[in-house]
Amino acid sequence: MVEKTVVILGATGSIGIQTLDVIKKLKGYKVTGVVFGQNKKLGEKIVKEYNVNFYYSQVLSNVSSIEELLEKTTPDIVVAAIPGFNGVISTFQAIKFTKRLALATKEALVCAGPLLKKACKDVELIPVDSEHSAIFQIFDENVEKILITASGGAIREYDNIENLTPKEILKHPVWNMGQKITVDSSTMINKAFEVIEAYELFELDTIDVLIHPTGTVHGAVFLKDGTVKIHFGFPDMKIPISYALTYPKRMYINLNWPEFKGENFIFTEVSEEKYPAFFYGKKIIKDLAKRVAFNAADEVAVNMFLESKIKFHNISKIVIDTCEKINGKIRDLEDVFEVDKLARQIANNF
Amino acid sequence: MVEKTVVILGATGSIGIQTLDVIKKLKGYKVTGVVFGQNKKLGEKIVKEYNVNFYYSQVLSNVSSIEELLEKTTPDIVVAAIPGFNGVISTFQAIKFTKRLALATKEALVCAGPLLKKACKDVELIPVDSEHSAIFQIFDENVEKILITASGGAIREYDNIENLTPKEILKHPVWNMGQKITVDSSTMINKAFEVIEAYELFELDTIDVLIHPTGTVHGAVFLKDGTVKIHFGFPDMKIPISYALTYPKRMYINLNWPEFKGENFIFTEVSEEKYPAFFYGKKIIKDLAKRVAFNAADEVAVNMFLESKIKFHNISKIVIDTCEKINGKIRDLEDVFEVDKLARQIANNF
Repeated sequence: MVEKTVVILGATGSIGIQTLDVIKKLKGYKVTGVVFGQNKKLGEKIVKEYNVNFYYSQVLSNVSSIEELLEKTTPDIVVAAIPGFNGVISTFQAIKFTKRLALATKEALVCAGPLLKKACKDVELIPVDSEHSAIFQIFDENVEKILITASGGAIREYDNIENLTPKEILKHPVWNMGQKITVDSSTMINKAFEVIEAYELFELDTIDVLIHPTGTVHGAVFLKDGTVKIHFGFPDMKIPISYALTYPKRMYINLNWPEFKGENFIFTEVSEEKYPAFFYGKKIIKDLAKRVAFNAADEVAVNMFLESKIKFHNISKIVIDTCEKINGKIRDLEDVFEVDKLARQIANNF
Repeated sequence: MVEKTVVILGATGSIGIQTLDVIKKLKGYKVTGVVFGQNKKLGEKIVKEYNVNFYYSQVLSNVSSIEELLEKTTPDIVVAAIPGFNGVISTFQAIKFTKRLALATKEALVCAGPLLKKACKDVELIPVDSEHSAIFQIFDENVEKILITASGGAIREYDNIENLTPKEILKHPVWNMGQKITVDSSTMINKAFEVIEAYELFELDTIDVLIHPTGTVHGAVFLKDGTVKIHFGFPDMKIPISYALTYPKRMYINLNWPEFKGENFIFTEVSEEKYPAFFYGKKIIKDLAKRVAFNAADEVAVNMFLESKIKFHNISKIVIDTCEKINGKIRDLEDVFEVDKLARQIANNF
């Protein structure tokens, strides 16, 4: 059997590490390239342990750019998992050199969905996000609407959210993830990103979200004949990561399922008062310029919050106010960068 | 568009009537033949309303046998929905004249599964039972086990079941069905039939059953990678019937789904004390002779119960005791008939 080659963009992050762990357990996959940020120690360890041919980072490289790494490896699969707007460019670069894009960098779809899909004409685009992988796995014909679930983040238990500290917010109840995405879970801005992502991936705008504390139901599709298909399982990113690698096969072995009991099937409506930016994000799913601003302002605001410069509830306020000031039409990636830059300036001025 | 032709075996029964209703709502399907029992008034109405070409029954026919009806119609689809052992023969006849068998007559798989599957070599076998249709719709590769749900029938609320009357038993909490199957739901012998049916259809013996009062979760598949797919929807037989007709497409329109709330996701274990025949049936899934006896003894015992000749709890006792007396190997349909006859004699002697 010929081994499938994999390049991981963002190898030292949460998705990257779990991808490496999955590949260790699968047969027939070989990591030929990794890109990471500043974690030299972990990067070195990965390069050695997985015998990685090419690596690029700010601290350790044997190629001069991500593009060179991609050109030298031309991998079967690229796992795009560099978080934030930084991941967008490398995702677009990856498409030129691979057959399958396993996409975790949701910003690529949020900020440039129509451009990315157009560029992916000859590339398989497989979602890695647990909710989108779930919908992708159970998608059918005649879908009337889809449901994705949300943990509600750390604040779902609090009534008074205004003064929550970064430490309180970073205690995510279900998923163990990076700082930025954990804060985004608490504002549910992450879930707004995911609604936009689902809108781009599945090309429908009938997307419901329910709060679901255990994270065991990831998504559901409602078919026009009255059928609902539900995707259920432990919140474990290795499952959607492995599916993105092995699709259409399922080669990952993990004989471990949650029980069919009431507490694994609790759902409640999302509170508009608690999560204003989520509802705002849902409203702008068809406005690409505002989507770019939504992402940019959020990156700025979350940083300010993590540095204790603003209060928690001001994240949503900054994001919404910034978006309200942005109008325009996105034609290409340059427009995306321009709107991103402008939105960051506006957000920084709050 | 060329119309697909349909013959319904058991047109005046619950499945038959709902099949006719579905066909009225679908485009492109035409009922060319119906077989029914003794309900002349309803049979006449159907023949007239659906402009049915050929019909056969004990009271009204324009052909001399079911076989002649099938030969004259050679339909695209046969919906086999004659209940009980009587349905087995006509199901085998149907296979010779059609391309698709939409199977509701579970006795055909219970009493002759391996023979039926062999005979269906060039015929699509699509399940109509809601649980099996559910599993069929969500089946995937690398299935480790499947789950089908059970209402628990009328007795799930009672602690003392010994003296329940036919009237009490016939109040099924979820599905509106014929008398025999409603009693079989209360003993959960129907669910044992369904476990056997699933064993034959999906060729695995890892089949769990849970009691689930609302009947909104019909089944689930547990995949080896940790994924569980769940089939959810109102208990409405028109959904699986339409799927069996239109598969692989979904053409039926019914924009009506149960809510995602706790009460639609309640599951409990099956009580061995309350449903002894169910557990016995699960034990004999690989013993075809005992399966034939299981079905035959149940038909006899349920009739005796409906005529108030025996108490409710004796149905299970007669079924188990009869099976214990039957041993042997089934090679062909004649063996099936012989064991069936013998088992009926034994059951009748109790």
